[in-house]
Amino acid sequence: MSRTILLLNGPNLNLLGSREPEVYGSDTLADIVAGLREYATGMDVRLIDFQSNIEGELVDRLHEARGEVDGVVFNPGAFTHYSVALRDAVSATELPCVETHLSNTLAREEFRHTSMIAPVCIGIVAGFGPASYRIALDALLAHLG
Amino acid sequence: MSRTILLLNGPNLNLLGSREPEVYGSDTLADIVAGLREYATGMDVRLIDFQSNIEGELVDRLHEARGEVDGVVFNPGAFTHYSVALRDAVSATELPCVETHLSNTLAREEFRHTSMIAPVCIGIVAGFGPASYRIALDALLAHLG
Amino acid sequence: MSRTILLLNGPNLNLLGSREPEVYGSDTLADIVAGLREYATGMDVRLIDFQSNIEGELVDRLHEARGEVDGVVFNPGAFTHYSVALRDAVSATELPCVETHLSNTLAREEFRHTSMIAPVCIGIVAGFGPASYRIALDALLAHLG
Amino acid sequence: MSRTILLLNGPNLNLLGSREPEVYGSDTLADIVAGLREYATGMDVRLIDFQSNIEGELVDRLHEARGEVDGVVFNPGAFTHYSVALRDAVSATELPCVETHLSNTLAREEFRHTSMIAPVCIGIVAGFGPASYRIALDALLAHLG
Amino acid sequence: MSRTILLLNGPNLNLLGSREPEVYGSDTLADIVAGLREYATGMDVRLIDFQSNIEGELVDRLHEARGEVDGVVFNPGAFTHYSVALRDAVSATELPCVETHLSNTLAREEFRHTSMIAPVCIGIVAGFGPASYRIALDALLAHLG
Amino acid sequence: MSRTILLLNGPNLNLLGSREPEVYGSDTLADIVAGLREYATGMDVRLIDFQSNIEGELVDRLHEARGEVDGVVFNPGAFTHYSVALRDAVSATELPCVETHLSNTLAREEFRHTSMIAPVCIGIVAGFGPASYRIALDALLAHLG
Amino acid sequence: MSRTILLLNGPNLNLLGSREPEVYGSDTLADIVAGLREYATGMDVRLIDFQSNIEGELVDRLHEARGEVDGVVFNPGAFTHYSVALRDAVSATELPCVETHLSNTLAREEFRHTSMIAPVCIGIVAGFGPASYRIALDALLAHLG
Amino acid sequence: MSRTILLLNGPNLNLLGSREPEVYGSDTLADIVAGLREYATGMDVRLIDFQSNIEGELVDRLHEARGEVDGVVFNPGAFTHYSVALRDAVSATELPCVETHLSNTLAREEFRHTSMIAPVCIGIVAGFGPASYRIALDALLAHLG
Amino acid sequence: MSRTILLLNGPNLNLLGSREPEVYGSDTLADIVAGLREYATGMDVRLIDFQSNIEGELVDRLHEARGEVDGVVFNPGAFTHYSVALRDAVSATELPCVETHLSNTLAREEFRHTSMIAPVCIGIVAGFGPASYRIALDALLAHLG
Amino acid sequence: MSRTILLLNGPNLNLLGSREPEVYGSDTLADIVAGLREYATGMDVRLIDFQSNIEGELVDRLHEARGEVDGVVFNPGAFTHYSVALRDAVSATELPCVETHLSNTLAREEFRHTSMIAPVCIGIVAGFGPASYRIALDALLAHLG
Amino acid sequence: MSRTILLLNGPNLNLLGSREPEVYGSDTLADIVAGLREYATGMDVRLIDFQSNIEGELVDRLHEARGEVDGVVFNPGAFTHYSVALRDAVSATELPCVETHLSNTLAREEFRHTSMIAPVCIGIVAGFGPASYRIALDALLAHLG
Amino acid sequence: MSRTILLLNGPNLNLLGSREPEVYGSDTLADIVAGLREYATGMDVRLIDFQSNIEGELVDRLHEARGEVDGVVFNPGAFTHYSVALRDAVSATELPCVETHLSNTLAREEFRHTSMIAPVCIGIVAGFGPASYRIALDALLAHLG
Repeated sequence: MSRTILLLNGPNLNLLGSREPEVYGSDTLADIVAGLREYATGMDVRLIDFQSNIEGELVDRLHEARGEVDGVVFNPGAFTHYSVALRDAVSATELPCVETHLSNTLAREEFRHTSMIAPVCIGIVAGFGPASYRIALDALLAHLG
Repeated sequence: MSRTILLLNGPNLNLLGSREPEVYGSDTLADIVAGLREYATGMDVRLIDFQSNIEGELVDRLHEARGEVDGVVFNPGAFTHYSVALRDAVSATELPCVETHLSNTLAREEFRHTSMIAPVCIGIVAGFGPASYRIALDALLAHLG
Repeated sequence: MSRTILLLNGPNLNLLGSREPEVYGSDTLADIVAGLREYATGMDVRLIDFQSNIEGELVDRLHEARGEVDGVVFNPGAFTHYSVALRDAVSATELPCVETHLSNTLAREEFRHTSMIAPVCIGIVAGFGPASYRIALDALLAHLG
Repeated sequence: MSRTILLLNGPNLNLLGSREPEVYGSDTLADIVAGLREYATGMDVRLIDFQSNIEGELVDRLHEARGEVDGVVFNPGAFTHYSVALRDAVSATELPCVETHLSNTLAREEFRHTSMIAPVCIGIVAGFGPASYRIALDALLAHLG
Repeated sequence: MSRTILLLNGPNLNLLGSREPEVYGSDTLADIVAGLREYATGMDVRLIDFQSNIEGELVDRLHEARGEVDGVVFNPGAFTHYSVALRDAVSATELPCVETHLSNTLAREEFRHTSMIAPVCIGIVAGFGPASYRIALDALLAHLG
Repeated sequence: MSRTILLLNGPNLNLLGSREPEVYGSDTLADIVAGLREYATGMDVRLIDFQSNIEGELVDRLHEARGEVDGVVFNPGAFTHYSVALRDAVSATELPCVETHLSNTLAREEFRHTSMIAPVCIGIVAGFGPASYRIALDALLAHLG
Repeated sequence: MSRTILLLNGPNLNLLGSREPEVYGSDTLADIVAGLREYATGMDVRLIDFQSNIEGELVDRLHEARGEVDGVVFNPGAFTHYSVALRDAVSATELPCVETHLSNTLAREEFRHTSMIAPVCIGIVAGFGPASYRIALDALLAHLG
Repeated sequence: MSRTILLLNGPNLNLLGSREPEVYGSDTLADIVAGLREYATGMDVRLIDFQSNIEGELVDRLHEARGEVDGVVFNPGAFTHYSVALRDAVSATELPCVETHLSNTLAREEFRHTSMIAPVCIGIVAGFGPASYRIALDALLAHLG
Repeated sequence: MSRTILLLNGPNLNLLGSREPEVYGSDTLADIVAGLREYATGMDVRLIDFQSNIEGELVDRLHEARGEVDGVVFNPGAFTHYSVALRDAVSATELPCVETHLSNTLAREEFRHTSMIAPVCIGIVAGFGPASYRIALDALLAHLG
Repeated sequence: MSRTILLLNGPNLNLLGSREPEVYGSDTLADIVAGLREYATGMDVRLIDFQSNIEGELVDRLHEARGEVDGVVFNPGAFTHYSVALRDAVSATELPCVETHLSNTLAREEFRHTSMIAPVCIGIVAGFGPASYRIALDALLAHLG
Repeated sequence: MSRTILLLNGPNLNLLGSREPEVYGSDTLADIVAGLREYATGMDVRLIDFQSNIEGELVDRLHEARGEVDGVVFNPGAFTHYSVALRDAVSATELPCVETHLSNTLAREEFRHTSMIAPVCIGIVAGFGPASYRIALDALLAHLG
Repeated sequence: MSRTILLLNGPNLNLLGSREPEVYGSDTLADIVAGLREYATGMDVRLIDFQSNIEGELVDRLHEARGEVDGVVFNPGAFTHYSVALRDAVSATELPCVETHLSNTLAREEFRHTSMIAPVCIGIVAGFGPASYRIALDALLAHLG
């Protein structure tokens, strides 16, 4: 069955590829999205992507996603830890959402150990670098059945 | 490249299939392991599995895994939240480990929001029911490259 | 005496009417604003309304309100619990402000029990669904005398 | 439709009018109740009022209100912050209750920021001086429909 | 109606009788169990007992109890305060369980004031020395009706 | 040996029978006391009972109980969680006291997990509905020997 | 200059003399008040005394004291630690008040280390047994000048 | 050596000059920036300035600054206390940054005592009114050497 | 009976008289000590006084006081809130000690609400300005009997 | 006088020698025990050693030690921080016990800063690598006199 | 206008130059003070300097500074985090004081994130190494006008 | 190899021998130091000792120890729990330091459970009375190799 999935990226993720390439690799967010889209296409999934450093634009994009997509792969970046607005937006969409992170946030500073958003998601995938996106997409599709 | 992976399950996970089947499905842990092994074989991965309700037996099994396996998929169950012994055991093996959970622990009671073990893992996969195991295995293999 | 009041709505409130209508009713935010404007007009009050999912746009709108309006009815939504920026903006306007909520935030998750904004308001009205707006407007007018 | 409402006032509220009149006005509680009763009568509402400095007498009065009134406007005063007994009494009555305060408790000492009682009320109105009572009554009637 | 009840004892309770006999009396755990079995028999109750110092063996025994017994009298001893594994095991059995303690744990060190297990039990009996077992058994039978 | 026991009930317990009968049964407090008195008589125990919603009246009753009774079965209701006055009164009587509750307070809201009074009692019985009273009486008598 | 002082005693203080006489001495509260009255008379001070175990009656007595006395010596007993109602009542009287305790509350259980009432008093005298009353009276008179 | 420095101002700072001029002086942000630019020019420093009330626009501006400027003087205003997004953005730029404030935030409300951003800055200058900017610029230049 | 008492004053108390005279009066510490010595002499008490801003010198002075004095009136000033060394020194002297303060520390900043030293004193007198010393001396003498 | 001492090692200590040898040296636990036994023999001390990764087996071994040994050198490893069962077991043996650690636990993660077991030991020796065992043995013997 | 400024340095700052010179440079405190004095002279400022490792000597020096200097540049070193005595001394001087640190204390251990002293200073300068002193002096002079 | 070790003692330790001799024995600090020096001499260790009740003098002595001694045995007494100055001083010396205590601080009041100094030491020895010094010296020498 054909699916449409929204890939949503929060603040600072636009820097992927140009920031600390020895850590995160030299692929830009555009490269990663392109690879993920190709992978998705192979599974009959249409991938829509959106990135913003502005919390409210991410809220807006989630609102629009209602009726448009079947699920959301969401890397909220730094907003993970304090954005009640994004939590409420995810909850309001009533769409299945997978929270994902490049790094293992539980192995970083203590303020990164909490997530405002995970409790309204179906699950979480974190720590696998750019591969986290593909793994989260698989997890979301597994959930959609 | 051929891999050997240890699938480690903690307390109460032996009840899968017989406990709240309307929630977790009617597949037993044996069924799930069998399916996962088949999936693994298709990727040239040998899967070793072990379950125990005894913290120390899980510690022992991790010790044995050194030199034997290439990585660990670990569902520590309830031990996630207090077992420093398992944290130290994972750390001592120096093996890449993925923490995984059937449920989205961040959406449950507050005492389930912390993990003693995740900080010494490469990442976490949680919330996708029995599918979490396959997804965690994929994530681990992605990490191994 | 004729008054001008700013009705300010924060994130996700644009979804009113289309989100969980069995809970919040089927009136959209536009419907509610229209009804409130009519009610206000009957009391010789001009109602200006503004909604945004972007914290900084709400800050901007509060800044503009200085010298323009006599008071503010403000439903900060999710921003209630963390937006120091909005607290400072309300404080800077030196306008009387009434914080209002559709739901009884004290009966929800613990992180909704605190308000960054209420301490710089004259008072709070919460829990009466869409009627909260009219009640808050009455309260503000009672304060203005 | 004719309604009967209980107006319940907790400790120290009997001092209204004689205590810091420059702050709270020179109207006594009796004056305020008289004004509110007149207002209520105009809306076909019968107002019963009761004040006590004794927690258990307020519990008793709430018990009696079952089957007698349609809702409660309750200013628990200082009891707001610690009286589990009043919380349980409100809950036991199964009557809609509006918690109200003369002052904006969230702008005062930290121990006044919590309410034991609000979680079992339909909502809260605080900060509008004696006008809080009329506003709370309107809010309760709006809830009753 | 004939009943079967599991009496489960956690760590260090095997020392009863030989440890501080001037405090706990000189009856061993075996003596206490014998007396309790006799008492149970008189009420047409078959008593199965199990003690272990190993958390996982208690988990195992709870698992086996499903379909075998009608309820559990459980003195988790020191595990009371941290064993999420036992909490999950009690919960998984879906059997009525009464938590019991020889001492009044609320009158001892602060870390003994919390219980991981009580929230998934029907109730608690604590502080009556060896008599706590008989009282807990009575309470369990009263619950079973 | 003949005993006299005080059965003390705190706030809101006078509503038993008329409040949520599907949960607590249709027996009033009077019914429960009558049944308990009959049960007590059979064991040569004279039962004195007292209920009040006023903390200070419970303090007074405890004071009078000195020299009058052999022990106390005390359901402090909501006062459990904050009444230092009742703690001091129990302590001052130097009488053995059993704290009892109809519900399993540890399975309810977090503020009900603490008890000001239990540390000065010999023990606690909680969670068995109206049967908690008889069980607590048995426990007290077991303590009295 | 002639003064009138209110001596106010809270819960359980009526037991003085009969409770643990080896600790607190065998003087009853009546004895202590008589001695204090005699001492006061010698300094041209009229002493009014009141004791209650009921928080609200102490609130009432404080209210009456306005315009009647020049200051208050107040031993709030257990109410010290949680009675916001008494704090507000002391504050409302606008009378100078000295909080006093027989025992050194800072050397007892941790929950006795806080005082709701001291912040609205001029000062505190604690730890000197029955002599605390005379010392507190002296302190109050020194304050009155 | 010629330098380029970014002066970044967060929410509500656009109100400088028109808000509480008796406190902050009557200079607008434009006046202050003009003065600072003149001062900078005298030291062969080119000053770029940017102000926004929108967190994400400040993130964007920091991203652009990479490769463009030698350092940042940053007054994050209210965002100081919760914006993980700005912390990550500062960190990602790998530019030396000085956090600065007009007021002494440590002498204000407790929630202003923490800074999410300072830990990724080289230092902090706070409390000197508009002069803080010039002092912070000096400090940054001292660091650049 | 003749007594010798040590009057010990901690940091900043040497400034009395010259600091905020409109608040604390224009009497210097020397004046206050002189007045207190005269008062003491009238009661056959020899007063030794010592002030230091150095914690260790106060420790030393307490050590010397063993065998030399009958009790201590101690105003530890700022050391009250953190000096474990002074607590241990008071405790080691085994002398009765009265902690005293000019101001009502419980009505000031929260960090002044705790005392490291009071738990090892017989009692506390606080809030009566310079009169606190005389009152504390009376209290100490009352304790000595 | 001849002594018998139990050397007890908790989880993961069986890995000594093979785990991070550059840090902990290449001596296995067996090597260390052998060296310690030789050292002990020279002081007429018989050393019994036991290691387990299973908490309950350590509890069992402590139980057996009663009447068998004169004291215990105990490295509880990770169990230090949460095992109430081991605390109770140490306490129940009534044997002098020295808690020991290879590393300086106070210089590691915060969760390693607490010890459930130290409060029931005579003392603690931590931070000296394998030498900690010999030092702890000396300390225990010094205590035994 | 000619100024006199006190430069006050707390514990361990006497080690500057000889401690970790690769981090802090090889300039001793004497070198730094000499450089700062020269800089000050150029601005018609007389610089008095004082360093001590003894808290009370710093208190004494602050007391002497009253009437002697126009302001204080104060690096309290480790005392920053707990010295209430120094806080009170700064406050008592009623002199403008700038707290300064070589390192960015907010980027170090958590216990260094609080300052007892900053709330009574006009501002803070931290993180710029030895340059912090000159910057703090400039800030103080800017404040003095 | 010949060693020089500094034995440093903090506040109140000068009272050893004369304070509670039934607990700590009748040996004075001088006696203990003499015995320890003799013991040290036998191992070719020169022992320098210093005691002060003044924190800053201990800081000074640590500074002097650089280049003079090979390591430090430090009983910081009460300073253990709050002296950041001593922590920094130990750290600045870059000398191996063993923290030692006569009593088992983890078995005493909660505020004695933390150590500001242990994290910068190599290890800790506590609880063995005067023998702690010899054991700590052995541990230090073992570390020096």
